Formats: sequence, C-alpha cells, structure tokens
Amino acid sequence: MNHHDVADLLAELRRTAPLVQCITNSVVTGFTANTLLALGAAPAMVDNLEEATVFAGVADALLINVGTISPAAAETMVATAQAAGQAGTPWVLDPVAVGGLPLRDRVAAELVPLRPCVVRGNASEVMSLAGADGGGRGVDSTAGTDAALESAHALRSRTGGAVAVSGPVDHIVGDTVRTVSNGTPMMTKVTGVGCALGAITAAFAACAPPADAAFAATAVWTIAAELAVERSSGPGSFAVELLDALHGIGPDQLARLRS
Amino acid sequence: MNHHDVADLLAELRRTAPLVQCITNSVVTGFTANTLLALGAAPAMVDNLEEATVFAGVADALLINVGTISPAAAETMVATAQAAGQAGTPWVLDPVAVGGLPLRDRVAAELVPLRPCVVRGNASEVMSLAGADGGGRGVDSTAGTDAALESAHALRSRTGGAVAVSGPVDHIVGDTVRTVSNGTPMMTKVTGVGCALGAITAAFAACAPPADAAFAATAVWTIAAELAVERSSGPGSFAVELLDALHGIGPDQLARLRS
Amino acid sequence: MNHHDVADLLAELRRTAPLVQCITNSVVTGFTANTLLALGAAPAMVDNLEEATVFAGVADALLINVGTISPAAAETMVATAQAAGQAGTPWVLDPVAVGGLPLRDRVAAELVPLRPCVVRGNASEVMSLAGADGGGRGVDSTAGTDAALESAHALRSRTGGAVAVSGPVDHIVGDTVRTVSNGTPMMTKVTGVGCALGAITAAFAACAPPADAAFAATAVWTIAAELAVERSSGPGSFAVELLDALHGIGPDQLARLRS
Repeated sequence: MNHHDVADLLAELRRTAPLVQCITNSVVTGFTANTLLALGAAPAMVDNLEEATVFAGVADALLINVGTISPAAAETMVATAQAAGQAGTPWVLDPVAVGGLPLRDRVAAELVPLRPCVVRGNASEVMSLAGADGGGRGVDSTAGTDAALESAHALRSRTGGAVAVSGPVDHIVGDTVRTVSNGTPMMTKVTGVGCALGAITAAFAACAPPADAAFAATAVWTIAAELAVERSSGPGSFAVELLDALHGIGPDQLARLRS
Repeated sequence: MNHHDVADLLAELRRTAPLVQCITNSVVTGFTANTLLALGAAPAMVDNLEEATVFAGVADALLINVGTISPAAAETMVATAQAAGQAGTPWVLDPVAVGGLPLRDRVAAELVPLRPCVVRGNASEVMSLAGADGGGRGVDSTAGTDAALESAHALRSRTGGAVAVSGPVDHIVGDTVRTVSNGTPMMTKVTGVGCALGAITAAFAACAPPADAAFAATAVWTIAAELAVERSSGPGSFAVELLDALHGIGPDQLARLRS
Repeated sequence: MNHHDVADLLAELRRTAPLVQCITNSVVTGFTANTLLALGAAPAMVDNLEEATVFAGVADALLINVGTISPAAAETMVATAQAAGQAGTPWVLDPVAVGGLPLRDRVAAELVPLRPCVVRGNASEVMSLAGADGGGRGVDSTAGTDAALESAHALRSRTGGAVAVSGPVDHIVGDTVRTVSNGTPMMTKVTGVGCALGAITAAFAACAPPADAAFAATAVWTIAAELAVERSSGPGSFAVELLDALHGIGPDQLARLRS
C-alpha cells in the first residue's frame, strides 16, 4: 500500500462520510469528534447501554476506548461490541492504559474474543492485552515498539483482524507487517492524539479491510501531525493546526509517507 | 427585530452576566462553557440530581441538552426542568439526535410538556420531537429546514414558547416566523457549535422573551461564525476564532445581520 | 522563595515528569490533561472507584476537584483520598463551587479531614469550606481575597498543609503568607484555568513541600497567562497560547514574578 492507495482510500472515506459511533473516554470526546469531522467522517458519541446497542446496527463503524471506564461503561462496551458483531459493523478497540488497572484489564480481556477488526495501542498496551508484561505507566508506553510485535501477532491470531502498534515508528500487523515512520514527538504532548487515531482507524474500517484501514489512518494522522508541527509553536497551537492539517490533507501531502 | 435590537439585547446580557446552568452532553461541556464566557454570561455545569434541582432556582436560565444521555441524566433532566418551571427560570431544550434513539426520544417527550421557553434543533430533530418522521442520522439533519416549519408550529402550540430550527437558513418560530441567513458551512465541521447555540439562547432567555432570545442568539452566533471563518484556515482554527469573534462582537459586526 | 527557586523546581518537575492522577470535573478533563502535558508532567485521568484507589498508590500526586460531582464520584473521591493518605501520595483538593450546593458541600467536608496537602480555591470557596459564609455564585468568587485569609488559616490548621486562595492577587497560606501578583483578567474568561492550576499544584506537590508547590504552581501559571494574553486576541486564542506559553516557560520568563 503506497501513498496513492492511501489517497484513494481517503477520497472514498470523504465521499461516503461514514457514521462512526464512539464509546470513548471522557477526556477526549470533543477532540475525537472534531478529528472525525475534520477527516470527513460523521461522529456519533452514543454511549448509553440502551441506545448504543441499537446504534451499533446503524453506524458504519464503532470505536471502543477504555480510557475512563466505569462499571456501567464496561457493560455498555461489551454489549455494544456484541451488537456490532451481530450487525457486521466493524469495530476498533483502543485498550488505553491496560496493564495493571483491574477494571479495564478485565473488560479488555472480554472484548478481545468479540473480535475487534483493529486493536490500536502503544507497545505496552498491546503487550499487556496479549498477556505479556508491558509495564504500563499510565497512558505512556515504556516498552519498545519492536518488542511488542510478537504480542501483536499473538493478539491477531485471536481477533482475526489487524493490530496497530503506535510509537515513534508505527507497526501495522496484518498478514504482513507494515511500518509508518512519519509523525512528531509533539503528538505525545497533546491528550487524545492516540485516541483520535483509534477513531480515524474506525472511520477507515468502514471503507477498507482492517490492515489497510489501520495503515491509511496511521499515515494520514502522522503526516497531518508533521504538517501541523511545522506551523505551531507549542502543544496548544499544535492541536489546533492538527485539525486544520487533517481537514486540508490530500494527495500532495500524503506523498510525504515514509513506510 | 433588527440588528440594533440585537445589539441592545447583547449589551443588556453583558451588563447582567446571567448565570446559565447547563445540563449538557459530555462531548461539548468545555466548549459550551467557553462559549458562554466569551459571550459575557456565567456558566455553571451543575448536573447531578440533588444539586441541579436546587440550582435551577438560583440560575437565571437553564439549558437541557440530551446529546449523551444516561438513565441517571434523564431523571436529572426531568426533575430539573420541573424545578425550573416552579422557580420561573426560563429553560431551553436541545433535542440532540432525537428520532430513533429510544432513551432520548422518551426523555424528550417527557420534557416538552414541561414547557421549554425555546426548543432549538435542526430540522430532523424538530420534526421527530413533534412526532413527524425526520429521518435523523446522528446529529446531522437530513430534512430541509422549510419542511420542519409545520412541526415547529405544532411543537410551539404545546410549549407556548419559541422553536428555533437551525440550518443554512435559521428559522425562529414564535408569533411570527423570522429568519437569519448568516453563518458558514464550517459551523458543521466543529462539534458543539449547535449545542453552544442552545446555551447562548438560554443566556439571552434570561434577558428577553423566547422568540427574541432565540433570534438574538442565532444572529450573534452566526455572525461570529462568519467573522471567524474569514480568519481561519480549517476547523481547528475556526473553533478558536469563533470564541474570539464572539468575545469581540458588537454593534458594528452585528450590522452584517441578514434576516 | 524567589523566581530562581521557582525555576529550579520547574526544572526538577520536568526532569522527573511526575505522574499526576486527576479525579476532576467533566468540563475540564481535556484542558487539565493538556496543561499537565505542556508543563512536563504525566496526567492520568483514572477516576473509577476500583482503579482510582489502586492508582493512588502508584501516582506521584493526586488532584481531587469536585466541580461536577455525582454520588458515585463522591464515593470515589473519599476512598481515593484515603488511599493516597495511606500510600503517602500528596493530594490537592479543589473545592469548586462549594458553598450552597449540598452534595459537594458534604463531600468537601469529608475530604478536609483526610488532609489534602494543598487546598486551592477562590476566596468564597475557601471561606465556605472553612465554615464561613462565602456567598458563592457558581464558580465565580464574590468575596475579596483578603477576607478569605482568616478562613485559609483556619482550614490550614485542620489539614496541616497549605491553602492557596486564587484571585487578582493570589495568596498562598503556609507557615507564612506569600503573594503572587501576576496574571490577567482573561484567566476568568476560559473555563478550567483555575482547575488547571489545581492540577499544576498537584504536579509540583510531587517535587516540593505544600506551600512551595502552591507558590511555584501559581507563579508558573500566572506568568504563562501574562505571556499568552500578549499574543492572543480573545479567550479562544488565549487558551491556545496559554498551553504554548506554559510549554515554553523557563527562567527568563519567570523573572517576571511579582511576589
């Protein structure tokens, strides 16, 4: 998959404006919705049990992010993932901070067998989810990306989809392992940048097979970040420029892809 | 009501700095509070059952927005609307995504008889709330604004207040139907722009009769949006410029009103 | 404590990147996390009962902010403050809008004996928390800062820590009373600026005794605000510039300290 393929998928996404249901954490709801809008998708943050299970049959894709979980949210996540599975709606799992926090660890373990089409996390989250010891410290990853590839393969054998390991170099593990080397360290200085990538991945999953969706999402988002950091003077302006860059990105910018 | 009247009402709002209680959705709480502050009002996001019902007697106006409802939030919304009614506190209902999502549909149906002074929504939301089939798709409206006017009149006959139908042209249905033609499509590319209009409407409702409040709020917000889009280069910077423009708006800018 | 001392503490904070757990209100979660990241700390918004009590033993500091409390959140706050106390994790209490709102008043009264190392609030909040009548009106303070000093001393006698009273002039009450005269009225036009100061205070509390932490946090934040307002044209751009300024602040900028 090269930058022309990514541009074609992005054009298809914008043409169809997929409706992306998000059950995500309370820190990033606004930024996630704005990211999906800037991308060209239609966000719907429907996250109560009764409506979420109905909506999973209407949405074109679903994101489940366990960042600020509660017992009620956990029940909704599992039921909605089941509803998505029954409806054939592709869904993405973002196992934020899994690894040593009991509630999210249990819920994530319940969600994996429900077969998310993509799991997107940092190295320690992917390792923890796969049962290895990732040594997570909040939402920052302390394990090297490469060390997580074995865990990603193990996880993928259980979901049948793709696993995207975010880091300085992103690895997308599908039938093959693809890498994306774009991005900027500033992405770690704004909350929700990783969570937003999960949402972008879900939007692409409405238009493409799992590994292609994860690759295109990672390419688009990390290239937008490179463009944004060139125009910003700190994390505040970076977050603003990131949305502008995502909104304006097209084939010319995507030629920056380093895979 | 012309642009001089709007400017007078805005001056009155800023002089009195109404305390606006918001029970709104989790995606837009921050942006809504920042909008009210930029306008010159005082936001108070008091939304637990025990405190919200007390606070409805202290606040100058109340917003209820069902965007991310839960069973507990639903109970709070109904009880707080009742408390506002008993205290004579004007309140605004924003029926986000009503039409096909069971929990919010039931709650919105309970809220209408409690007589919100203004209902503000897009065409499909207003049609669904009035019992017509609006064909909602998430928070985007798929029905034309004009087609919703009949529903707005029907709804108004039940609330005794005004109904504001947002769209490319906004219609405010009171004793007469007024229109506002300002705005920019970029308003649909930032989450919470419609929700913030609900909050602005509540702030004006503390200072003016329902239809005047809805008209002034729509004028101020859509003109601020026109000013903002001229200074922005995408949805990220638009959201920032929108708050700056709202904060700085005055009689000169309001002369852009196209009604 | 002079501006060189503040610069040294800031350098120490950035070197250690303390993990700051936040149980805060739903309006400001994203802005709070972004503030901590811009400062150089690591935010973790772990706020469910089961995980929060575990995490309080892992985190370097904890913030509890009662801005949008619920019965479930109240239970979590008390249990997590107890867990922090047992683990020796310093924690900061931000009693948002305490004074006349029943649930938060009760919870704040339960939290004070659990000995927060710093209480940070505006004058009316501090007075209400100490049992005096502060006449709160939402989150804005209606009492003069000076009038709250007596309450701050009373409160401090119960917590054994420091009390920071925010206002046009900030007062930090420890063994002595120190003042910070930096800042800008624009800080009151963006939601969460005060709440973010609570989080910054918690980050410094991981590196310094309570009164020094509160002083350094206030100095850094109010000076960043002065820098930001010079580069902004309204509250929208101010919030963006504030994060950029905080991220870039160093010894040269801290020389603006007026204490």
